[in-house]
Amino acid sequence: MALSARNVLKGKVKDLKKGMVMAEVTVEVASGVLVVAAVTTNSVERLGLAVGKDAEVIIKATSVMLNA
Amino acid sequence: MALSARNVLKGKVKDLKKGMVMAEVTVEVASGVLVVAAVTTNSVERLGLAVGKDAEVIIKATSVMLNA
Amino acid sequence: MALSARNVLKGKVKDLKKGMVMAEVTVEVASGVLVVAAVTTNSVERLGLAVGKDAEVIIKATSVMLNA
Amino acid sequence: MALSARNVLKGKVKDLKKGMVMAEVTVEVASGVLVVAAVTTNSVERLGLAVGKDAEVIIKATSVMLNA
Amino acid sequence: MALSARNVLKGKVKDLKKGMVMAEVTVEVASGVLVVAAVTTNSVERLGLAVGKDAEVIIKATSVMLNA
Amino acid sequence: MALSARNVLKGKVKDLKKGMVMAEVTVEVASGVLVVAAVTTNSVERLGLAVGKDAEVIIKATSVMLNA
Repeated sequence: MALSARNVLKGKVKDLKKGMVMAEVTVEVASGVLVVAAVTTNSVERLGLAVGKDAEVIIKATSVMLNA
Repeated sequence: MALSARNVLKGKVKDLKKGMVMAEVTVEVASGVLVVAAVTTNSVERLGLAVGKDAEVIIKATSVMLNA
Repeated sequence: MALSARNVLKGKVKDLKKGMVMAEVTVEVASGVLVVAAVTTNSVERLGLAVGKDAEVIIKATSVMLNA
Repeated sequence: MALSARNVLKGKVKDLKKGMVMAEVTVEVASGVLVVAAVTTNSVERLGLAVGKDAEVIIKATSVMLNA
Repeated sequence: MALSARNVLKGKVKDLKKGMVMAEVTVEVASGVLVVAAVTTNSVERLGLAVGKDAEVIIKATSVMLNA
Repeated sequence: MALSARNVLKGKVKDLKKGMVMAEVTVEVASGVLVVAAVTTNSVERLGLAVGKDAEVIIKATSVMLNA
C-alpha cells in the first residue's frame, strides 16, 4: 500500500507537549530541519510517540504553501 | 512580521508543472529532501517561481500527520 | 506502523476524473456512502488507482467539520 | 443553499471530549463507521453537540487522502 | 442547523476560472476585501456559481494562519 | 518575498483564548467582519499577539469552501 500524500519524510521525535485534546510533536527530518505537527493527544498515545522514537512526517501537497 | 505557521523550510525549486487552475511545485529543502506543494497557477506566476529559484516551504502544524 | 490520522475508512474506487495536476477520486466506504478526494494526478498514477480497485480514505481529524 | 464541500455524511454523535480550546467529536456515519472531528470547543457548545444527537460530518475533497 | 466552521462570511462572486478538476472562485466579502477559494469544478457547477451571484465563504478556524 | 497563499487580510486582534497546546485568536478584518484562527499557543507567544495588536489573517485558497 502507498499513500497519496506526496510528502513523507523520515525523522525522529525531538519534543512532545500534550494537552487535553491536542498535542504538539516536533520531528527532526534532516540535520537541523525540524517539523512541528499538531495532532490529537489520542494519536500520540495510540502511536506510542516519545522523544527519540522514529516517526515519519506526512503532509498532503494541497496543505503546502510557498514564499518566494 | 512573523508567521504563526510553525514550519518554514528554506529551499530551491526543483520541478514545476502548471495546470489551468492548480500547479505542482517541488522544492528541495535539504539535500535529497523534496517537498511537493499544490498551489494555484496564479500564485506560481505572481511569485515568479521557476526551477532553480529560492523558495520557502510553509506548512501549518495542524496539517502535519505522523506515522510511527 | 500506524498513522496519526484518526479517520481511515476502507472502500472501493467508484469514479475517477484526471486533470493536468489534480484528480478527483470517488470511493465507496459503506453501502451508498461515497467520499470524494481531490489528490494530485501524479498520486493517482503512482498508486495505480482505477475504478473497482480497493482504496482506503484517510482524513485528519482537524479537517473534519460538523453541522448540527 | 448548498455547500461546495463534496463530503456531507449524516450521523449521530457517539463520543465527545472537550479541552480548553479544542474538542474531539466522534460521529457514527454508517453502522460501525466512525469519523472523528477536531473542532473548537466553542463550536461544540454553540451547536449544542451531545452524545446521541444527530450531526452531519463535512469534509472538503482537498482534505481527503488515499491509501492503495 | 449550524456549521462548526467558525468563519462564514457573506459575499458576492466577482470572478470565476474553471479548470478540468479544480476551479478558482473570487468572492468579495466586504468592500474591497476579496477571498479566493479553490474548489472542485463539479461544486461550481452543482452550486450554479456565476459572477454576481451571492455566496458565503466558509473557513475552518484550524485553516487560518496569522502574521504579526 | 510574497506568499502563495491567496488570502491575506489585514486586521486587528479582538479576542484571544489560550489553551495548553492550541489557542483561538479572533481578528477583525473589516468593520464587523471577524475571522477566528486556531493556531498553536506557542505561535501566539512567539508572535506576541495581544488584543488590539495588528495582525494579518492568511488563508490558503484550497482551505476555503463556498455556500450558495
